Amino acid sequence: MNNIQINSQGQLKHFLGIEGLNRDILLRILDTATSFIMDESKAVKKVPILRGKTIVNLFFENSTRTRTTFELAAKRLSADVLNFNINTSSTSKGESLIDMLHNLQAMHCDMFVVRHSVTGAPHFMAQHIAPDVRIINAGDGQHEHPTQAMLDMYTIRQHKPDFSSLRVAIVGDILHSRVARSDIHALKILGVPDIRVIAPKTLIPRELDKLGVRIFNDLTTGLQDVDVIMMLRLQQERMKTALLPSTHEYFNYYGLTEKALLVVDSDAIVMHPGPINRGVEIDSLVADGSRSVILQQVSNGIAIRMAVMAMTLGTIEV
Amino acid sequence: MNNIQINSQGQLKHFLGIEGLNRDILLRILDTATSFIMDESKAVKKVPILRGKTIVNLFFENSTRTRTTFELAAKRLSADVLNFNINTSSTSKGESLIDMLHNLQAMHCDMFVVRHSVTGAPHFMAQHIAPDVRIINAGDGQHEHPTQAMLDMYTIRQHKPDFSSLRVAIVGDILHSRVARSDIHALKILGVPDIRVIAPKTLIPRELDKLGVRIFNDLTTGLQDVDVIMMLRLQQERMKTALLPSTHEYFNYYGLTEKALLVVDSDAIVMHPGPINRGVEIDSLVADGSRSVILQQVSNGIAIRMAVMAMTLGTIEV
Amino acid sequence: MNNIQINSQGQLKHFLGIEGLNRDILLRILDTATSFIMDESKAVKKVPILRGKTIVNLFFENSTRTRTTFELAAKRLSADVLNFNINTSSTSKGESLIDMLHNLQAMHCDMFVVRHSVTGAPHFMAQHIAPDVRIINAGDGQHEHPTQAMLDMYTIRQHKPDFSSLRVAIVGDILHSRVARSDIHALKILGVPDIRVIAPKTLIPRELDKLGVRIFNDLTTGLQDVDVIMMLRLQQERMKTALLPSTHEYFNYYGLTEKALLVVDSDAIVMHPGPINRGVEIDSLVADGSRSVILQQVSNGIAIRMAVMAMTLGTIEV
Repeated sequence: MNNIQINSQGQLKHFLGIEGLNRDILLRILDTATSFIMDESKAVKKVPILRGKTIVNLFFENSTRTRTTFELAAKRLSADVLNFNINTSSTSKGESLIDMLHNLQAMHCDMFVVRHSVTGAPHFMAQHIAPDVRIINAGDGQHEHPTQAMLDMYTIRQHKPDFSSLRVAIVGDILHSRVARSDIHALKILGVPDIRVIAPKTLIPRELDKLGVRIFNDLTTGLQDVDVIMMLRLQQERMKTALLPSTHEYFNYYGLTEKALLVVDSDAIVMHPGPINRGVEIDSLVADGSRSVILQQVSNGIAIRMAVMAMTLGTIEV
Repeated sequence: MNNIQINSQGQLKHFLGIEGLNRDILLRILDTATSFIMDESKAVKKVPILRGKTIVNLFFENSTRTRTTFELAAKRLSADVLNFNINTSSTSKGESLIDMLHNLQAMHCDMFVVRHSVTGAPHFMAQHIAPDVRIINAGDGQHEHPTQAMLDMYTIRQHKPDFSSLRVAIVGDILHSRVARSDIHALKILGVPDIRVIAPKTLIPRELDKLGVRIFNDLTTGLQDVDVIMMLRLQQERMKTALLPSTHEYFNYYGLTEKALLVVDSDAIVMHPGPINRGVEIDSLVADGSRSVILQQVSNGIAIRMAVMAMTLGTIEV
Repeated sequence: MNNIQINSQGQLKHFLGIEGLNRDILLRILDTATSFIMDESKAVKKVPILRGKTIVNLFFENSTRTRTTFELAAKRLSADVLNFNINTSSTSKGESLIDMLHNLQAMHCDMFVVRHSVTGAPHFMAQHIAPDVRIINAGDGQHEHPTQAMLDMYTIRQHKPDFSSLRVAIVGDILHSRVARSDIHALKILGVPDIRVIAPKTLIPRELDKLGVRIFNDLTTGLQDVDVIMMLRLQQERMKTALLPSTHEYFNYYGLTEKALLVVDSDAIVMHPGPINRGVEIDSLVADGSRSVILQQVSNGIAIRMAVMAMTLGTIEV
């Protein structure tokens, strides 16, 4: 399904999902991102790499936060950016998704950053777009969120350079999380030997054991000796279904607190894709504590998105 | 009414409507657009012609598609662009249109691209604006949509360079179409000898014969031997009135199908301003077929808007 | 409370309010703005001072007009601009204001222009932001609107260069006006000896006499011999409370008419922050008359905002 994102020279053409990519490509993304990271002075590096290119944010699901990171990344590469609010666009006039894409393509837009509630929407677009247009998946359904996974890998590598010796636990609503799915694929590909998911039984997908991860329903048992804890955001709407009893009870069993951290490695780091629900999946003392690398993840997200944009738009096949 | 758009040297100052312009000006717009068209490599030409200029999209009617084409055109000329969502702007505080214009003008905005549901709104603005500010009509009421007409003329000329020998049919809701009105004026001015409109009687305006066009109520009769077919979009809301029975019946009588095309010239092209209603005014086989130049129209729209912006902002009278 | 906006070298670090600033800083802002003002040809000066910087408009209260002036100012300084519609942002996911700020800061945004309905919100942000990030107050509650005050001072100085000999009257809804509060502070700091407020008793705050202004309830008495009249916008929603009887009656007593101007100085100027309510607080003959400098205020607003942005982002403490 993901072969479409690699061209015949093995270069990244689209960025649709982590599944199916190889270790070399993932490391190239991380290394390219390094070149965009601010130095200690935090002076902004604005580079002319994509000057004259037009990047369109096509967000069918509203997410100001994620859209902003892509917009910032594009502007720091000197591209022109168009933001599409799909509710107010011509789809309300009954235009099909493909017609809309073909129109934007005819306007010589060079890249579409797509968020969509339907799994596979970015793949579908990549299959129907002109050969010189690029698609970046900014989250599709409960499927993948590959730039989030790569910024997570980047942040892990900053603190734990050797993936081959890591114990990583992903905690929370695995069932509905495209972040978890992309992270698991990336950790596997990068050679992490011990990947664990920790969640109540109702939030663990059936096919998960096939991915080669260990499943825990008890937080303390699952966190034993881990180096990296990746918390997931608990969607408030899960509470409205029968999947979970209450946020209070969820916090009691799965909320990350100082006490829960007693069993982890002394240098373990705490991650979260944001925005965090304080007191639901994570205690404020932990979110703001010394182990937390949550805001570093946000910073790294800009560099990772710059890397993916620069790499895909730089590999136009002739 | 349109004299205001030409300065004393005969140059384009505003672009408000096709009516009243001469053949020379229209050809100059087409030729200027040619210089902005992407070459075969489709490499983006970003030019510094309007660097430091500020262009404001003032859309009182929502149209993401049209606004996007103007925004792209402005950015490719290196102008700064402001998008005004009029619903959320200070007009909701009871500010008058003229006060709003004078305020934006005081901020040294150089051009307003205006879409408004009221006929003549852009003319009204042009009459009340400072001499160094430019107005572009992006569609006013059921009056004119001059940039659409010029991109249509551009696309026709690409395929049929000699306007003086053409047979052109415009098909659909002529009554409510500013596109039809602007296209008819442009075709007349450029010397097209045979202009036909094809529509049910309820969708043909009374004064149309004065414009020197031939009126047909039957699709096959009207399409006989034409070189160019310009389809119009059927507004869904027309169905709610007594003007038309149903989309199904409309398609039976006026929908453009492969069968209907049997009577046209062998090299005839099919045009549509978009977004298309598949299965309402046009069959998908035709819209996506070899005669269709619909996506070329979209591409040409960027170049035409660049041309009009560059020409009007370059002719400041001293 | 405002000390936070000055760094240890006495330079402007944030711009949160006029209260607490000294005369030297205010004059420096006015002089810096002068360098950005368009010359007679009105040619746009786009300067590269903030190239590579990212400025975020964080508007928790909707105001297209004010946001636009900041956006234009930022773009003319060559900064990249992000506009945040807070209703559609992640705050709707329950993210706290501080978490949102820290996230944007982690993305290496350099400045936040903040409008908020709560008094002190920009101060609060300035206290919780990284040392190299700047906050500009674009209006907080009924507290301050410092850039409006500075553009008012700029406009006054254009016409009346000597603040030390001026009689200035502020007319209207003083009680709810952050503009009035900031203007009074600025006039005091710049040494205006005669500051008057004119309003019905219900629209005058209790603590006003402490600020050293003279209070008038009668328009003609208050306007006697003044050099500058600063009208305030009457919020229509005041009519819904018991504070005022009707707009008609308000206009009769406090509306600025040609007749009311008979008692002022022959060179007196009329100002208004906009958008004006014609026939409510000001007659059209006056708003559009020869004494009116209302549109000059708008023009000056761009230069003042450029000045404040350039000064604060240029004084990063190491």
